[in-house]
Amino acid sequence: MSLTESAAVDVARSASLASRKLAILPNAARNEALTALYKALNENRATILAANARDVEAATLAANSGDLNHSVLKRLDLSRPGKYDDMLEGILSVRDLEDPVGKITMRSLLDEGLTLERVSCPIGVLLIIFEARPEVIANIAALAIKSGNAAILKGGKESLESFVAIANVVSDAIAGSPVPVSSIQLVKSRDAVSSLLAQDSLIDLVIPRGSNELVRFVKDNTKIPVLGHADGLCSAYVHSDANIHTAVKVIVDSKTDYPAACNALETLLVHEDILDSIFPAVATALLDKGVSLRCDEASKAALLKTLPTEKSTGVQLAAEADYDTEFLDLVLAVKTVRATNTPTSAVEAAIEHINLHSSKHTEIILTESQELANLFMSGIDSAGVYWNASSRFADGMRYGFGTEVGISTNKIHSRGPVGLEGLTIYKYLIRGNGHAAGDYHDGPGGRKYIHSTLPF
Amino acid sequence: MSLTESAAVDVARSASLASRKLAILPNAARNEALTALYKALNENRATILAANARDVEAATLAANSGDLNHSVLKRLDLSRPGKYDDMLEGILSVRDLEDPVGKITMRSLLDEGLTLERVSCPIGVLLIIFEARPEVIANIAALAIKSGNAAILKGGKESLESFVAIANVVSDAIAGSPVPVSSIQLVKSRDAVSSLLAQDSLIDLVIPRGSNELVRFVKDNTKIPVLGHADGLCSAYVHSDANIHTAVKVIVDSKTDYPAACNALETLLVHEDILDSIFPAVATALLDKGVSLRCDEASKAALLKTLPTEKSTGVQLAAEADYDTEFLDLVLAVKTVRATNTPTSAVEAAIEHINLHSSKHTEIILTESQELANLFMSGIDSAGVYWNASSRFADGMRYGFGTEVGISTNKIHSRGPVGLEGLTIYKYLIRGNGHAAGDYHDGPGGRKYIHSTLPF
Repeated sequence: MSLTESAAVDVARSASLASRKLAILPNAARNEALTALYKALNENRATILAANARDVEAATLAANSGDLNHSVLKRLDLSRPGKYDDMLEGILSVRDLEDPVGKITMRSLLDEGLTLERVSCPIGVLLIIFEARPEVIANIAALAIKSGNAAILKGGKESLESFVAIANVVSDAIAGSPVPVSSIQLVKSRDAVSSLLAQDSLIDLVIPRGSNELVRFVKDNTKIPVLGHADGLCSAYVHSDANIHTAVKVIVDSKTDYPAACNALETLLVHEDILDSIFPAVATALLDKGVSLRCDEASKAALLKTLPTEKSTGVQLAAEADYDTEFLDLVLAVKTVRATNTPTSAVEAAIEHINLHSSKHTEIILTESQELANLFMSGIDSAGVYWNASSRFADGMRYGFGTEVGISTNKIHSRGPVGLEGLTIYKYLIRGNGHAAGDYHDGPGGRKYIHSTLPF
Repeated sequence: MSLTESAAVDVARSASLASRKLAILPNAARNEALTALYKALNENRATILAANARDVEAATLAANSGDLNHSVLKRLDLSRPGKYDDMLEGILSVRDLEDPVGKITMRSLLDEGLTLERVSCPIGVLLIIFEARPEVIANIAALAIKSGNAAILKGGKESLESFVAIANVVSDAIAGSPVPVSSIQLVKSRDAVSSLLAQDSLIDLVIPRGSNELVRFVKDNTKIPVLGHADGLCSAYVHSDANIHTAVKVIVDSKTDYPAACNALETLLVHEDILDSIFPAVATALLDKGVSLRCDEASKAALLKTLPTEKSTGVQLAAEADYDTEFLDLVLAVKTVRATNTPTSAVEAAIEHINLHSSKHTEIILTESQELANLFMSGIDSAGVYWNASSRFADGMRYGFGTEVGISTNKIHSRGPVGLEGLTIYKYLIRGNGHAAGDYHDGPGGRKYIHSTLPF
């Protein structure tokens, strides 16, 4: 075992022990730690911002010499107006959410004196690997403590000074609270990641937050369950009966509100009957916002026919790969959907395309028909399916979850924005009075289960 | 791509397409398929039992020559009294359970005209790998269809003839129903397993049912999430205030009702104060049932002091490894728990031992104190925690779930016996009227989220 590996085991083991202590703390004790965390981060604002300024300075140099993306620089800066206060407010809003632990979600009477109960409990130890945003540490620490989970945090190298400063404040704050100090641990060494990803007996869930490359690396290098999404390839289908104003508004917002986000629109499917009517209106609004359109033959021909020449420079012919691409930029793939002889054939074709090409994040339909919307909503295999609303609503804050650790495209456990509830699991509790399973049988004198639901 | 691999891709792809059709079928259509399945299996009883008899004949030869375990032989035989009828009844009881799909579990108003809804839906494609029990195919097919999932089934080689006969009947029955025929597919080739385990883009969940070796092989050879348990190392802690009759009854049932089951007791922790009182009574009852006890020094000494010599042959000194062993036999590891100066110290020591050594399946406490029971129930990190009741209750039928696909020791998604609900996930649906996320901001004219809970 290398030194790094043994250090990783130590971190994971102490987190595991802390998680068991954390699991039995009442909500008030966990809230006390969150209040302490809020106060400490508020009092140490100057120190943390000074450390962050050093990160920003180094990153600015790297960005200016082309070694770092300017968007990373922007995410790194904690001194931007409102950012630090938002981080602080986030801790209090998590604290004030309903306790996600100890919720009874099922209760039944198995037999006289024998009850079965299902109660929510923390998962255990979370490993959270994230990139530049330094405020994430406070956000995650708050979510982990509130949900009774221990968390091991590994941040990106660009924000190391900020992370260390915040982590020290977090540790000091927790040390004065009932929450075990090993509940939140910061790992600095990059090498530690691989060693931590090997601790599948001690770590229960990995949450990577960052680039698609990071998520793929994590998924390919661990047996621990991974919660997150590698891609956010969201699609919209505009049916022939769509309201033109609704379609324009929703598509433009989905594509242009924040093109680099995972919930931004990447593929537009258009019913063939509206290529000359609704589609040009949508396309014009997108082109006006600087969006390049990668169209199939039919949709391109329709636009070239209806648009003034000066606008058509933004219209190109799509390659097949464009329908599998998360552009994360002002580029949109467009495809025509054909209808055959049944009223639902076009929607079915759209569903088929989306289920084959999308990343199962969020998809939207524009239609005035409730029946077709319902068909789309049940047929699409994605975490979010919206009717006449922007894909950009796929977000924990917007869903009203207070905050989120990320958006999951997993098919098990948690899907979509993951808040406190997504960080819990449950256990079954049975209370008896000397009940033996061997007494329940079909033979003479055998007991029978009652299996009646009890109130909770 | 080898032929096997391309065949595996074909199977997985057709299952994936079938799963999307199955996902939009109403409960009545899925129930119709289950009724057809019941009728077909009833009508083809003679053919299936004849095929099963051939498996049993071959297995008997293998068992007699020592190439096969006799317990496998027993599990293989569908002609044992009641077994075939139980299989048939199981299909109808699954059919008559509440529809697990389309259940609304959350509903809120995000803004005027903008609703958010969380609704249960099938996971997609399940790969179920199981060993000798041929009736599992009917059980799993019923659970998969009812929960709207497609299933790929791979059975053990000992029951191949039975599986092929049942699978043909299942396919024919489904073919005459609204459920796509590729929803349930049987894979015969052993080589296909590795190829199927590689289809992580098409298969959503693997459920291995069988030996610990099978489960470990599956976990080590796939990126698909695995639902199940490798070990069932269940423990009991007997506190100093335990009722002696309750302790004897519960411990004996936990250990001897069915020693080869995953929910059988493997480790007994005994408070030091009852080594000369309750423990000898428990030990005597166990020894009378033929159980060998592997005791630590203190518990061994206590027994040798109190038991008549002829009984003490069943008492041996434990090795450290015994506390990490799932005996699956009439053997029980025994350890003394020491109390220090606090009233909860012994329970805490028991919790610590269990969380370190158990497989997180099911653990029990014997005590008359509700306070200590609650501490144990919140401190233990296992799928089931019982107070004064046998570990053998860890079972889907006994929990009242109708049936189960297995018992999960996972820390995410499903835990404990997994019934229909454990085979579903959810999606978030938003219904709007042209709502754009960009309209919600703190600036002038920005909209605010309402986030009020709606009835459902």
